[in-house]
Amino acid sequence: MAIVTAEEIFATYDQLGEIEAQFDDVETEIIRHQYNLSKDLYVKRAEVVSKIEHFWPLVIEQAPEDIDAFIQPTDAQILLGSIKSIDVKRFEIDTPVEGGDPRSVSIKFEFEENDYFEDKVLEKKFWWRHGKDGFVGYVSEPVDIKWKDGKDLTNGLLSLAKAAWEEEKAAPKKEGKEKKELTPKQKELKEKIEAEDAGSVSFFCFFGFIGERVSAEENIEALKKEAEDRKKRQAGEKVEEDEEMKEDEDDEDWEDEEELDIFPDGDTVAMAIADDLWPNALKYFQQAQESDDISDGEDDESDDDESEEDGDKPSKKHKACAHGCKH
Amino acid sequence: MAIVTAEEIFATYDQLGEIEAQFDDVETEIIRHQYNLSKDLYVKRAEVVSKIEHFWPLVIEQAPEDIDAFIQPTDAQILLGSIKSIDVKRFEIDTPVEGGDPRSVSIKFEFEENDYFEDKVLEKKFWWRHGKDGFVGYVSEPVDIKWKDGKDLTNGLLSLAKAAWEEEKAAPKKEGKEKKELTPKQKELKEKIEAEDAGSVSFFCFFGFIGERVSAEENIEALKKEAEDRKKRQAGEKVEEDEEMKEDEDDEDWEDEEELDIFPDGDTVAMAIADDLWPNALKYFQQAQESDDISDGEDDESDDDESEEDGDKPSKKHKACAHGCKH
Repeated sequence: MAIVTAEEIFATYDQLGEIEAQFDDVETEIIRHQYNLSKDLYVKRAEVVSKIEHFWPLVIEQAPEDIDAFIQPTDAQILLGSIKSIDVKRFEIDTPVEGGDPRSVSIKFEFEENDYFEDKVLEKKFWWRHGKDGFVGYVSEPVDIKWKDGKDLTNGLLSLAKAAWEEEKAAPKKEGKEKKELTPKQKELKEKIEAEDAGSVSFFCFFGFIGERVSAEENIEALKKEAEDRKKRQAGEKVEEDEEMKEDEDDEDWEDEEELDIFPDGDTVAMAIADDLWPNALKYFQQAQESDDISDGEDDESDDDESEEDGDKPSKKHKACAHGCKH
Repeated sequence: MAIVTAEEIFATYDQLGEIEAQFDDVETEIIRHQYNLSKDLYVKRAEVVSKIEHFWPLVIEQAPEDIDAFIQPTDAQILLGSIKSIDVKRFEIDTPVEGGDPRSVSIKFEFEENDYFEDKVLEKKFWWRHGKDGFVGYVSEPVDIKWKDGKDLTNGLLSLAKAAWEEEKAAPKKEGKEKKELTPKQKELKEKIEAEDAGSVSFFCFFGFIGERVSAEENIEALKKEAEDRKKRQAGEKVEEDEEMKEDEDDEDWEDEEELDIFPDGDTVAMAIADDLWPNALKYFQQAQESDDISDGEDDESDDDESEEDGDKPSKKHKACAHGCKH
């Protein structure tokens, strides 16, 4: 059964690659189908929950660990005190573009008047892109916040990230080694990031996440190349391995990019919001109410892992499960 | 905007219930659709990976925390040394039955000849059921293992769980307080469980998981009642609240059931296998290879959280993501 020759190994890996590509096609189709089937339901949900006081603050209180870990006490004050609604859209399903992907997601937060910033709405887009170096994932652009005087929770990081990004975009394209030279704002940003305590950065730095630099154009090119390679593989032809080398070379460049990111986990948080907090909001809301009931204290027996579960997981027995159970 | 009267509160909660039910319908349809679209692909994958030595052991090595936490060192020896394949089927999509659900899942492990047990195949089914007390989730039946002499890793727990289950099924149905009287085997099992160190129980106790007692008949009845209630709610009628009371009453009964379960987290592990390890096996395999590359030691710089990520999460940048990214 086991593979013997190098030829066979390569053939097997090519087959795995093709199977992966086909799974990806199915997933793409499923995301699109699910979005279209549930779109109106989310609108209806928004209508109903707008009548419930503190709905979204209660949901955020129960946020899974991937989100909760990034919320500092002062952030919590704003998020729990003045968040009005969260909305998630798959904007490249709503408005298809060349190279667009149903995974691309926009997250919109609506706020009440508050002491910290002027914005009533903060919206951040995450594009699902393929890079020429083999990267596949979310990339974004910094979104600035109009902080009130002396209230900037990011301590200037967010505005600087935005300014460095604008400078980077305006600068002429560089190739090879030069690519690694930082612009003045980037240098300033890098120093400022290094000076901060990574563990205590505000959740609002989330709006500064950029991720890997993959433009819409590069994405289209990479998708074309992948499609060509796939055809070749299906036809049993050899695919040149030069992109693998490119990947290694770019890896160093990528490290610079991460160093310049004020919230390197932005993609993880975006996924946790779009694929968990948002679709399961009713479940988290119910969980919040149940944990209120528990703290009312009618029940103090054997269930001593209750508090542990509250924090980051849907309750094990699914009584409160909003729709199915993929967690 | 906010709700004022008790009437309005009830109406809003009824609306939320209806929205939840509709989300559930969408999810059910999506699971079915995805299963049918990917069925043949999984067959093809099984064919190809059967040619790769140690494919499944390498995948298990990278298992997410929800599974890995339950694998003891001796278990690992068997799982890594003699597992041949894992197969997951949604058997109530393949063979529809009244009250069946696309979430119902069977997990089949195939083993090489090994020193511990005679079985070449161990298969466990998880039925997705609705209880009359409002429970929704997985229930199962114990599957015994033919241990070789002196090799029983569960220390007799699994066989006893199976025997107690048979006795329970054969015993006449009891109502009310009598329900809580244990059969002789159940008493023996309860004592044996209490005597064991919960943290060091073998992974193979997974095959003993039962969960809440919800028969196929109860499930059908509960689904009918839910459908009726839903129609009433849609028509704006009041739904009697008697089932809530029932839920409280049954809660105590439920605790007994958990006390009698040799692997209370069986449903969580089943979900982690069916919804993560199994669909993402190619990704975990690739991750295993990458972590081999890393331990070869070409890369010892800034990525010091690498080892942490290896353990329980798909790599952040999705380079190895098999199909999409819902984690």
